[in-house]
Amino acid sequence: MLIVHHLADSQSERIVWLCEELGLDYELRRYERRPDRLAPDAYRALHPMGIAPVVEDGDRVLGESGAICDYVDATYGGGRLAPGPADAGFAKHLFWFHWANGTFMAALIAQLAVRMATDGGATAPFVEARLARCWAMIEDRLGQAPFFGGEALTTADIMMVYNLTTARTFRGTTITDRPNLLAYLARIGARPAYRRAMARCEPGRAPMLS
Amino acid sequence: MLIVHHLADSQSERIVWLCEELGLDYELRRYERRPDRLAPDAYRALHPMGIAPVVEDGDRVLGESGAICDYVDATYGGGRLAPGPADAGFAKHLFWFHWANGTFMAALIAQLAVRMATDGGATAPFVEARLARCWAMIEDRLGQAPFFGGEALTTADIMMVYNLTTARTFRGTTITDRPNLLAYLARIGARPAYRRAMARCEPGRAPMLS
Repeated sequence: MLIVHHLADSQSERIVWLCEELGLDYELRRYERRPDRLAPDAYRALHPMGIAPVVEDGDRVLGESGAICDYVDATYGGGRLAPGPADAGFAKHLFWFHWANGTFMAALIAQLAVRMATDGGATAPFVEARLARCWAMIEDRLGQAPFFGGEALTTADIMMVYNLTTARTFRGTTITDRPNLLAYLARIGARPAYRRAMARCEPGRAPMLS
Repeated sequence: MLIVHHLADSQSERIVWLCEELGLDYELRRYERRPDRLAPDAYRALHPMGIAPVVEDGDRVLGESGAICDYVDATYGGGRLAPGPADAGFAKHLFWFHWANGTFMAALIAQLAVRMATDGGATAPFVEARLARCWAMIEDRLGQAPFFGGEALTTADIMMVYNLTTARTFRGTTITDRPNLLAYLARIGARPAYRRAMARCEPGRAPMLS
């Protein structure tokens, strides 16, 4: 059976949500963060990279959110959360699916690294400019379609929502001036699979949807 | 016809190489960087994100390296550079394909952002630790298999090689102590498609393979 190793408040919440959307049988192993917010040694030992997410499937150990989404959806979901070349949303889906970590989360990590290296005393202008464009693109896209890939939920949404909820809230970014994003997160929060996933990932805490 | 917009010394060299590996007809439009090394306004205007790569296919404009690799390989290459669930290298391919930008390049960008924000005076320890693990994982993987996905070249290699050549050289990172990586880059540099791509991307300059 697929084992999903979830580190609290981390990107691995995506994989739990993916499994719930696909209705899979899976085993969830949950790890609390240390008091300094880093991952515990038991989590770091799972994979050479030492970061979340990690899954095990038989003797296979796999990291990297996008890779796990593609792997699990193709292996256990018949590929139904990933549009193909014949589907209208193919290119849009691919863009947001890869952009979520390849550009948006990369800029968020760069911003965090600068804050940590300067005790919050400096910024990198190219990073701040990228992030401003990222948030504007998101609001624009969610005014065009109900989901990032188009009319239906895809793994692009699975990748994006963590950035827009948990990661955003821990950075103190507010979205009260972003009506399309708020409406999108309300749609996501109404999905039984998302609610089940978040209840399993962070028991006793409401999803960070506003 | 597919139009590939290449910004000099940027991630868009991947897309030119991909088209050459697939033997596609495509139009290359090349943009020099400004004297301050930033992209010119004409490149920024191609896509809301304002960064490389960007391709055009009819009235479709697509950014993000990983998305373009998946899109072009599936649409014009019959998917032959992306292993499927029935192939032995499926999980390994997916890991390195997504990890190239999702984790490795993200850490390289974070390191650059810290350097720029502090005039080179500070580092973020979590970023430096991640990069040390990244380089060790790469050397380890290339001791196990001739390509990142296994026995044959895949889009995982297309994603990784820019990080290991052009981006690395501009950061001043040397690899003389990494025999597996050096042997891998020699294999890549012997490929006619790679040589054609680099000759078109950066005319008159040798690939940065050592």
